[in-house]
Amino acid sequence: MSAPVANPCPVETVAWVGKLPGHCRLIEQTRLPLETVFLDVHDVAGMVDAIYRLAVRGAPAIGVAAAYGVVLGVQGEERRSPADLLTHLEKVCATLAAARPTAVNLFWALQRMRRHGEALGARGLGSKALIDGLYAEACAIHREDADQCRRMGAFGAELIRDGMTLLTHCNAGALATGGMGTALAPMYTARAQGKTIAVFADETRPLLQGARLTAWELSQAGIPVTVITDGMAGRVLSEGRIDAVFVGSDRIARNGDVCNKIGTYTVAVLANRHKVPFYVVAPLSTFDPETADGSGIPIEERPAAEVAEGFGRRTVPAGVKVYNPAFDVTPHELVTAIITEHGTIDRPDTARVEALLRRAGVLAGVA
Amino acid sequence: MSAPVANPCPVETVAWVGKLPGHCRLIEQTRLPLETVFLDVHDVAGMVDAIYRLAVRGAPAIGVAAAYGVVLGVQGEERRSPADLLTHLEKVCATLAAARPTAVNLFWALQRMRRHGEALGARGLGSKALIDGLYAEACAIHREDADQCRRMGAFGAELIRDGMTLLTHCNAGALATGGMGTALAPMYTARAQGKTIAVFADETRPLLQGARLTAWELSQAGIPVTVITDGMAGRVLSEGRIDAVFVGSDRIARNGDVCNKIGTYTVAVLANRHKVPFYVVAPLSTFDPETADGSGIPIEERPAAEVAEGFGRRTVPAGVKVYNPAFDVTPHELVTAIITEHGTIDRPDTARVEALLRRAGVLAGVA
Repeated sequence: MSAPVANPCPVETVAWVGKLPGHCRLIEQTRLPLETVFLDVHDVAGMVDAIYRLAVRGAPAIGVAAAYGVVLGVQGEERRSPADLLTHLEKVCATLAAARPTAVNLFWALQRMRRHGEALGARGLGSKALIDGLYAEACAIHREDADQCRRMGAFGAELIRDGMTLLTHCNAGALATGGMGTALAPMYTARAQGKTIAVFADETRPLLQGARLTAWELSQAGIPVTVITDGMAGRVLSEGRIDAVFVGSDRIARNGDVCNKIGTYTVAVLANRHKVPFYVVAPLSTFDPETADGSGIPIEERPAAEVAEGFGRRTVPAGVKVYNPAFDVTPHELVTAIITEHGTIDRPDTARVEALLRRAGVLAGVA
Repeated sequence: MSAPVANPCPVETVAWVGKLPGHCRLIEQTRLPLETVFLDVHDVAGMVDAIYRLAVRGAPAIGVAAAYGVVLGVQGEERRSPADLLTHLEKVCATLAAARPTAVNLFWALQRMRRHGEALGARGLGSKALIDGLYAEACAIHREDADQCRRMGAFGAELIRDGMTLLTHCNAGALATGGMGTALAPMYTARAQGKTIAVFADETRPLLQGARLTAWELSQAGIPVTVITDGMAGRVLSEGRIDAVFVGSDRIARNGDVCNKIGTYTVAVLANRHKVPFYVVAPLSTFDPETADGSGIPIEERPAAEVAEGFGRRTVPAGVKVYNPAFDVTPHELVTAIITEHGTIDRPDTARVEALLRRAGVLAGVA
């Protein structure tokens, strides 16, 4: 086992407690920012519930939690035969997969756990060794996620100078990953390097991930953070307060067009007008080389109630229509650079994205 | 008395009920959009309370309500001597002026009522005639406000073609004036002209005037309206859904820079990028020829709680800073035209603003 990943961010979104048998400890994100409560999850049903209720959210964090969910489902089942255990593993994975039917990282992590179990079974291992192997694989998924965050943080921190003030949108931080986040990783790293920084966080309507989650985790880390409403970003930029923008991404097309939380495109347009660099931080798994440009990315439309009744009371008149797209697309010409765990793509376009993906072995062909 | 102003908007924010003695009827805006409740105000204390609680808001609407508040204070006081009545008028005005210490239209309307009373007194009128005269002046203030709205609506409607979809920010509608509004007046007028239109309304954080008030009054008028969060305007514009933007203004500098509700500047930048016209609708009283450009306009900063606890529960972690500027400034080069009750200023700049103000007699000198 490698040494634990040094984490300059004090927030541990997903953790495994003890060895085997053990349990999974999550930050109960539905209670943030009012209370910092940890949720100890001891079985598969508990993990399904935690994922479904958004106690844990953010694609990478869900993947890590689901992998530990598999461990919860198989630990203590040493008396089963290896064949019976693998059948049981299938059922555990199917149960966890039903928690949130659209979360890609959930399926990816569960498939990796299932295939690992099958590979160990094919090598003729006994049930005890199978369970140990699945636990090791879940830890590896967690460790790799944290390591990717650390590498993005190191590349991104090169772009942050002492004294800078940064703007971010939504939450692409430790609370969304098994490590220190994507967009926020360069901030934690810059801080650990001794740089003084300050951050403005868009509250990010409708679900307020910026106000509730980004502000919380940055303030936990001692990084000065100021919350603004989404409509204030233009004012703050026009006042010359912002030196760089850092955001995450949900999907990046082959030409570098960036799909991210609704409102990101507006921030990119404003940053462009004020000649402030606009950085996107995302692991290579976010790239979708099958999609030529942003127009091919489907945009999920979410329930009207998130906008109309987002705070426990109705703010939009009954009967009035609401439009609630969850994401928007920032065209690549507004993106100063995309920061990945394999390095930075300056002024991304199809050729530059393809070059990095080839170098990293994600795309076939010579770099 | 002239004929009542035809109002294609069905919302009557401020009304006088009966003749003398009568009372003032307000839409209780604090209950919108959950309930449409009218508030009958019978005395000065009731009007002070209504203005203070924001039961009536919007600078022009407050001015009209305050003028009627003066009538409530003097009606039935015929037994006083004229001199005594004028002293009483002073006290009534002072009481109303204390309701909201920063509302310019409030002071303007009260000063006009006081001066009118003094002028009538100087002409030797008796108390009954004085009271009748003050009532007539309040009605005139209301009528002139409604008439300005009607004229802005007519000029603005020339810019709206059948089938257009419009975007607006905050509430510059009937609920903010004694007539059919500023930014929304062209919409009501276009609709009355038989044009089919649809409107997207930014919810307008932090106080949600777009979701609560604009959506309510447009839907009351049968104009299809869709509410979006402020961060969605960029997406909606990039989808090609918007043909023109209409907003109001709180102050316009001599060079045409426009101060308006926070978030307006962001909408202007987005409209500019998507080559969508950006129209500002405001009466001449909004212009401030003493201020050369937008940098000279002071921006009010409001309490953090509006952002952090805007919905009856805390959404920002305790101890985290909030920045809450109430307004921003849109530079004149992003403004396609300013629509006033005296006509439209295309591509406003200092020379064009001065030309209109001279023509309207607001600035000295030859047009």
